[in-house]
Amino acid sequence: MQATLGFERPKHILSASQFNRAFLDYMYELINQIRKFDKTKDGLMYLQSLLPHRRAMLYFTQPSTRTFMSFQAACSILGIKPSEIRDTATSSERKGESIDDSLRTFASYVDLIVMRAPVAGLSDRIATLLDATPRPVPIINAGSGPDEHPTQALLDIYTLQRSFKSASGIEGKTICMVGDLKRGRTIRSLSRLLANYPRTQLIFCSPPEFKIADDLRQFLSSRDVSFEETTNFTAAIEAADAIYMTRVQDEYDQAGATKVDTRAYCLKQEHLPLLRRDSVIMHPLPRRDELDPAIDHDPRAKYWRQERNGMWTRVALITILMGVDSHIVLPTL
Amino acid sequence: MQATLGFERPKHILSASQFNRAFLDYMYELINQIRKFDKTKDGLMYLQSLLPHRRAMLYFTQPSTRTFMSFQAACSILGIKPSEIRDTATSSERKGESIDDSLRTFASYVDLIVMRAPVAGLSDRIATLLDATPRPVPIINAGSGPDEHPTQALLDIYTLQRSFKSASGIEGKTICMVGDLKRGRTIRSLSRLLANYPRTQLIFCSPPEFKIADDLRQFLSSRDVSFEETTNFTAAIEAADAIYMTRVQDEYDQAGATKVDTRAYCLKQEHLPLLRRDSVIMHPLPRRDELDPAIDHDPRAKYWRQERNGMWTRVALITILMGVDSHIVLPTL
Amino acid sequence: MQATLGFERPKHILSASQFNRAFLDYMYELINQIRKFDKTKDGLMYLQSLLPHRRAMLYFTQPSTRTFMSFQAACSILGIKPSEIRDTATSSERKGESIDDSLRTFASYVDLIVMRAPVAGLSDRIATLLDATPRPVPIINAGSGPDEHPTQALLDIYTLQRSFKSASGIEGKTICMVGDLKRGRTIRSLSRLLANYPRTQLIFCSPPEFKIADDLRQFLSSRDVSFEETTNFTAAIEAADAIYMTRVQDEYDQAGATKVDTRAYCLKQEHLPLLRRDSVIMHPLPRRDELDPAIDHDPRAKYWRQERNGMWTRVALITILMGVDSHIVLPTL
Repeated sequence: MQATLGFERPKHILSASQFNRAFLDYMYELINQIRKFDKTKDGLMYLQSLLPHRRAMLYFTQPSTRTFMSFQAACSILGIKPSEIRDTATSSERKGESIDDSLRTFASYVDLIVMRAPVAGLSDRIATLLDATPRPVPIINAGSGPDEHPTQALLDIYTLQRSFKSASGIEGKTICMVGDLKRGRTIRSLSRLLANYPRTQLIFCSPPEFKIADDLRQFLSSRDVSFEETTNFTAAIEAADAIYMTRVQDEYDQAGATKVDTRAYCLKQEHLPLLRRDSVIMHPLPRRDELDPAIDHDPRAKYWRQERNGMWTRVALITILMGVDSHIVLPTL
Repeated sequence: MQATLGFERPKHILSASQFNRAFLDYMYELINQIRKFDKTKDGLMYLQSLLPHRRAMLYFTQPSTRTFMSFQAACSILGIKPSEIRDTATSSERKGESIDDSLRTFASYVDLIVMRAPVAGLSDRIATLLDATPRPVPIINAGSGPDEHPTQALLDIYTLQRSFKSASGIEGKTICMVGDLKRGRTIRSLSRLLANYPRTQLIFCSPPEFKIADDLRQFLSSRDVSFEETTNFTAAIEAADAIYMTRVQDEYDQAGATKVDTRAYCLKQEHLPLLRRDSVIMHPLPRRDELDPAIDHDPRAKYWRQERNGMWTRVALITILMGVDSHIVLPTL
Repeated sequence: MQATLGFERPKHILSASQFNRAFLDYMYELINQIRKFDKTKDGLMYLQSLLPHRRAMLYFTQPSTRTFMSFQAACSILGIKPSEIRDTATSSERKGESIDDSLRTFASYVDLIVMRAPVAGLSDRIATLLDATPRPVPIINAGSGPDEHPTQALLDIYTLQRSFKSASGIEGKTICMVGDLKRGRTIRSLSRLLANYPRTQLIFCSPPEFKIADDLRQFLSSRDVSFEETTNFTAAIEAADAIYMTRVQDEYDQAGATKVDTRAYCLKQEHLPLLRRDSVIMHPLPRRDELDPAIDHDPRAKYWRQERNGMWTRVALITILMGVDSHIVLPTL
């Protein structure tokens, strides 16, 4: 399959940098196929028949609702039984166990580990650790610190591709990202994936304090991605094929940090006339003031669909990791 | 079905005031049928085959054990995969998300939401919110503040009906409710349902500080329900066909509130000889001093059965909301 | 079955003292059979077909990861739907409910209760309570205070038996237990089970402050088990067919207790040459300093397998309690 599809089947999902264009295109078709099974009880039961003998651990030590629920639903859709750690106070870590031992323990009982942690790089380290044991299991990074959030980036790409499907896809489009671009891991992961689409233009719109980090700037230059950094929100709205709003990541703030004024970077009803008719509005959610709920009913608002796309994206990823994606692409129903 | 059955199929379960007599009679038959499936593995597997492609969210931000477990078991019985939020500290609400957005998120991933919250009216608001979206899901109010607890009232009615089945049903019976009648939402919801049964008499027995609220008094008058308010516990016991004990709802007390003396409103072994031979003792549980565990073995004590009836009542309700009740009433087994 | 197998089918699993040699031998064969089903999807689906109509409550009010997950996985393997209480703050106990009432409530909704609690004797009390109700359910003690941990002892016995299978079994072997032998409930339960194997020799190696308790000493003498207490770790390592390391149980310490110096009782890489070539190293986990992770790759290190054996041991126990073990021993696949 690797030969024909143009990518190597991943053992783990750790970083957005793992995915090439062939993988992204394959994911798009796979998710579309999976969604067809959602139409009927028979289709849903077929999906559940793929992995009913498997168990997963959702190890979420960083607060999360939608990513957690999205993975939990994705597991159930495939018949996988999910268990969870969300509070290390109930766990052996309280008895002085190392995180390595805890995760090796989980790996003893399950067939897949999905992890979200406040520290960067943890999922890489655990993947390496488990690969050296007699019973390695796939790891999915569901968000690690201010660093990476590869599954979010994949669902964002799927949503963009789907939104532009009658407009010849993502290539050549102008994607504008707004908000806390310095600490938003979503922004980092998505920008990296967009480098796979020729002629795409990126606009990074933020207060000066929240400009993108140097390493991302260097990455984009090295890949010849055309991008612009600006504080002019109105101009950015007018130029965008897709406007991707994000919230301030102040959970990483030190207590007493001076708050950055982001009031000029909030999308409101008054901005809607500026936005192109075929443009789309996205947001990884949760939102605060930066995205007015009054916009929700506008047909260009795609963020609620984006959220549900996340669930299907995770279903697709799990089928690939567990080697049952071939049962989807050529459905036997 | 609506035409023949005499009630409109509910989209949500929000309040006891939704249910008319036809609905209550239908529920009684439906629950009895469902319980027959509990006798064998084949029967239980048939129930699980009804909704195995569905997922539910149990959103319980108010402490609860039995209502939570009862719904969780009810979901499992029907094959539904339940997920849960019981602690908002692990959720996006910590990142400043509105409750509306949180619940719309849950609705993206599941097919049914069961919610119990400390604030009154939340489930109504969320039901209205979701009904305006492209993917509405049914809401069940599993208790909201001091206000409503419709599923408890339904299970109480079922238990009464079952207890009186060889005594020509609930009509004309004397039901005595004891305890904190002012704040007990169970009392409010049950009293409203009892108005559907002609000639029923209600005795409300409580310390003066805990008399029923004005709105309930007015409701009963408007429906011509005969009722009496008293502080005489002994006389109430003697008159009752069913005695419904409740605990003091002091979780709603302000710190430092003067405690009301309820010692004269506790059912003890010494009261048993006063109670009619064919009378029944009920309690929504959990109990404290107001119901002596020494009574548990008395054949008139129905509260443990009442608890298990709750599970079957919730199974029945879910089948109605999800449109599979017709598979129960005419079992194909 | 009781007649032929040489033991009475247990109603509950409360204490290691329930198990005789016939039971342990039966468990060994049963677990080996069950593990064969783990090889294929069909085998795993057969296991899930045994109890898919059943529900279990995991009541874990004492912090635990591996015992909890091990039972949760064991339930899923058999098709049982597990629910959990891990934090009494979300439960009715906050409303003043007694533990007895809480557990009777759980018993209303499920078919099996697994409990781990910080107080000794709770599972015995609850088993007695439920046996007097119309709907008793089996109770498994998954660890109670400093007292008993029977399922840990069973998995330890299985691991020893499996490790010694080409060396004529456990009989006559020298088992050395190291660490906090005074408060380790694992040690207590395992020592009691080892009394079922003739000519077994026990070495208890610990600092003087952590010597085994008097009641265990008396039990072993009454059963004519040969044992030795020592502070000489090096000699113990050299003599052992199996070395069973344990951690200091300081969660039972009073604040401000003087710490015992256990540095001389830690197994490190430098000890490996002292250990016999066919010896085995075990540990109930979680570990701290007493077992160096550098040892993990040594072929004599069995503690990670021991952990996974725990899951299969619990699967086997549940099949016995629920009366479906006969479907395993003579597989129909």
